[in-house]
Amino acid sequence: MASPEIDALTQALARLPGLGPRSARRAVLHLLKKREGAMAPLLRALEAVNDRLATCSTCGNVDTSDPCAICADTRRDGRMLCVVEEVADLWALDRTRLFPGRFHVLGGRLSALEGVRPEDLAIDSLVARIAHGGIDEVVLAMNATLEGQTTAHYLAERIEHFPVRVTQLAHGLPVGGELDYLDEGTLAQALRARRPVA
Amino acid sequence: MASPEIDALTQALARLPGLGPRSARRAVLHLLKKREGAMAPLLRALEAVNDRLATCSTCGNVDTSDPCAICADTRRDGRMLCVVEEVADLWALDRTRLFPGRFHVLGGRLSALEGVRPEDLAIDSLVARIAHGGIDEVVLAMNATLEGQTTAHYLAERIEHFPVRVTQLAHGLPVGGELDYLDEGTLAQALRARRPVA
Repeated sequence: MASPEIDALTQALARLPGLGPRSARRAVLHLLKKREGAMAPLLRALEAVNDRLATCSTCGNVDTSDPCAICADTRRDGRMLCVVEEVADLWALDRTRLFPGRFHVLGGRLSALEGVRPEDLAIDSLVARIAHGGIDEVVLAMNATLEGQTTAHYLAERIEHFPVRVTQLAHGLPVGGELDYLDEGTLAQALRARRPVA
Repeated sequence: MASPEIDALTQALARLPGLGPRSARRAVLHLLKKREGAMAPLLRALEAVNDRLATCSTCGNVDTSDPCAICADTRRDGRMLCVVEEVADLWALDRTRLFPGRFHVLGGRLSALEGVRPEDLAIDSLVARIAHGGIDEVVLAMNATLEGQTTAHYLAERIEHFPVRVTQLAHGLPVGGELDYLDEGTLAQALRARRPVA
């Protein structure tokens, strides 16, 4: 019995990940109640992003400028390049503030099942960036999944003839992880990669 | 390291009920990835609602027209009036499609603790609607909380001299409720209001 406009807004919100029909309705009610405090800022922010949205032609990051803020930042260490599957992974790693270098977004992972082949990913542009020189270390930060690791393997072979150090993220216990809740694969990795106590 | 525009959008989404910083980031990434399929519809829907948002001057519902769609609907049974605390409650009851009448939104509940007095709620306009005539039944659909029931009690006294039937929602076991998980208050209500098996 809500108006078609309100229904459309509820549906648009309900399609966001993490929101269902119920929480979308609650969100809409919140927006309707707080027109100045919530609706207006959201609308302005959405307009601003929609107007300026761009994919970085260097690294594949999504930002409001091309090159993106990371590629344009001269304080970044251009000698380190971190390769990730998706933009979300880039953001997650960047939030740690522990990686001083730049990124490269593949746009997915190799998958026989889903028919994703090397030419479907931003691999040629990655190889071109490495071939261009100036890079000392390439961090393969794929997901710890079968497909992620297959992709990392493939990339490692593709770039092994370049004079760069190729590394990957450590696998092991997640912080706060309790042994008896972890899967055997993680435990096996943690055991294999065990280190002397400092 | 995301642009200020993207940060602002993430923050605006994170303030919605049901979304936190983490899920807001995931939602933003989804919007950035699906510009045509998700971002554009959400932006259009938000603009449409923001442009036309109105509070119904009759019942207090929030809609894109005044009178709202419910008050304007001539198929609704004007002899039945359901009083609710908030717009969210109106929507929830209307979704059941079981109430054929119209609504009245109080805009809250009486609360000594929060200093909400009768004059802070849309009670005078409720009494005026009933005094205007044509209403046979008033359903007091307050929340089953102490404050909700206090409000219902107060309203019942305010309107008892009108020739209307005053009812309230049944209290008892929620559908799917298991006895040993329910609080004693609910069980006591369910027991007191027990009915002969049909």
